[in-house]
Amino acid sequence: MLISKIGEFGLIERFRRKIATDFSVVVGSGDDCAVLKFDKKYYQLFTCDMLVEGVDFTEKTDPYLIGMKSMAVSVSDIASCCGLPKHCVVSLGVPKKISLRKVDGIFKGMNDLCRKYKINLVGGDLSRSDKIIIDVSMLGLVEKSKLALRSGAKKGDIIFVTGPLGGSILGKHLCFEPRVKEARFLAQRYKINSMLDISDGLAQDLWHILKNSKVGGVIYEDLLPLTKEAKGLDDALYMGEDFELLFTLPNQEAKKLLKNNSGSFYPIGEIIDNNCSLVLIDKNNKEKVLKSDGFRHF
Amino acid sequence: MLISKIGEFGLIERFRRKIATDFSVVVGSGDDCAVLKFDKKYYQLFTCDMLVEGVDFTEKTDPYLIGMKSMAVSVSDIASCCGLPKHCVVSLGVPKKISLRKVDGIFKGMNDLCRKYKINLVGGDLSRSDKIIIDVSMLGLVEKSKLALRSGAKKGDIIFVTGPLGGSILGKHLCFEPRVKEARFLAQRYKINSMLDISDGLAQDLWHILKNSKVGGVIYEDLLPLTKEAKGLDDALYMGEDFELLFTLPNQEAKKLLKNNSGSFYPIGEIIDNNCSLVLIDKNNKEKVLKSDGFRHF
Repeated sequence: MLISKIGEFGLIERFRRKIATDFSVVVGSGDDCAVLKFDKKYYQLFTCDMLVEGVDFTEKTDPYLIGMKSMAVSVSDIASCCGLPKHCVVSLGVPKKISLRKVDGIFKGMNDLCRKYKINLVGGDLSRSDKIIIDVSMLGLVEKSKLALRSGAKKGDIIFVTGPLGGSILGKHLCFEPRVKEARFLAQRYKINSMLDISDGLAQDLWHILKNSKVGGVIYEDLLPLTKEAKGLDDALYMGEDFELLFTLPNQEAKKLLKNNSGSFYPIGEIIDNNCSLVLIDKNNKEKVLKSDGFRHF
Repeated sequence: MLISKIGEFGLIERFRRKIATDFSVVVGSGDDCAVLKFDKKYYQLFTCDMLVEGVDFTEKTDPYLIGMKSMAVSVSDIASCCGLPKHCVVSLGVPKKISLRKVDGIFKGMNDLCRKYKINLVGGDLSRSDKIIIDVSMLGLVEKSKLALRSGAKKGDIIFVTGPLGGSILGKHLCFEPRVKEARFLAQRYKINSMLDISDGLAQDLWHILKNSKVGGVIYEDLLPLTKEAKGLDDALYMGEDFELLFTLPNQEAKKLLKNNSGSFYPIGEIIDNNCSLVLIDKNNKEKVLKSDGFRHF
């Protein structure tokens, strides 16, 4: 039996059921980051992301951008939990015949992003592999009171995104800005009920929030901000790698945010009831049930 | 210019020179683990190790053993710093057509090793790749007073290993026992001046201690414990993946250990002076200068 029979998320769920963790783990596998006990004020966040040549970038991709992306995806995970990135280690697999110039480019991209976000690159592992593989593991810190998870959405919440969606494959997926600033802005002023970053497409990632929070959602086509690069609604719903934050605020908090909105936050729908369902209201006011489709490895 | 021109360690050194870290990093890249500030009593250890099909195991290797090894190499890094492993995340790249049975086997190997060492497997990333790639990142804790590094060897120290060396490629490299118990035993009773685990071969790894500590060393062929699988001295010196601990104790501490020795610790030589040199005294009492040879990816 091939793993494609049960799919990427089926496989993850299969593993998760067999894992046991102790009291020092606040949130284990299943959110954007693991949440670990740290001290009186903070939780420690722990996440990893692997990029593979031929899947996440091509042989022709600018090495500098590959390096940037390899870090940025993990920073985005830390931001999804409202944290600040602190330390990382990098495992790098490269072909024997890779040029020094290319490896230098990848490293420079990683290192520049680390400097920008004040992340300590504290170690790594170097290995031979047929194709380029980069795995970044990152640690972050978040105030206990500010931690945001996928599981806290509640009926009446307003659903937001931090930017236009779609068409990321044309370039943005390689040079997006992880939304740390936005997450911290929100965490310091508002009560965030749920949050994650859109890596697999709005539909699939919103489904992660709905399932984990055991609620339903409705989104409005008219409200969905699209990038110039998006060819249409489907790009925003299913393409993935937008790396914008998707979050929900209680209605009163949402009103405050919208009143003070600097233009960075787009309300796109609301959490409606306790049934796991996701409905899109299209431009003609017609309801369309959205399934949990989007990017999948298997 | 290909990276093989400057080699694996040249490349790592090239990267390291460009990295900046802040006050929260006690030891950055270059030891078995990064050492991070944690609390009054403990440092946090952070390490990662990537295994690649065709390099660290073959297509025919028992998946369960692949899973065990992927965890054990990181546990061994934590042990090298005298720490206890606590949490880990796993990035797993597998081909689209891999069988569920094989993936289950890998996972069971990882999970069983985690349970044995009470490690929380708190998250991961799953990706498509042509060959199996496993990268484990692990966190551990060590009492500040017990931290062992590569850089503390001093003239007069006795050099020890925790077990026979050589021939690991015949099987041990897939099912070795990381030396956590031995490291903790030593740390609680003796002053360890330097320590690491032998992954690239005794000669190369002892060189890491000598260079980092700016000292020289002499080892005795007569004292070197060989496994039954080792075909000869060269296997012990250069083959690698023994995953035994290599450590140095001040002379007085070494005497105490040897007096109480339960048979797990083998003295093999001593730290002799302040010049970076490594000499082997062979069975005929002849001196042989050992270079820093051993396993290298490039």
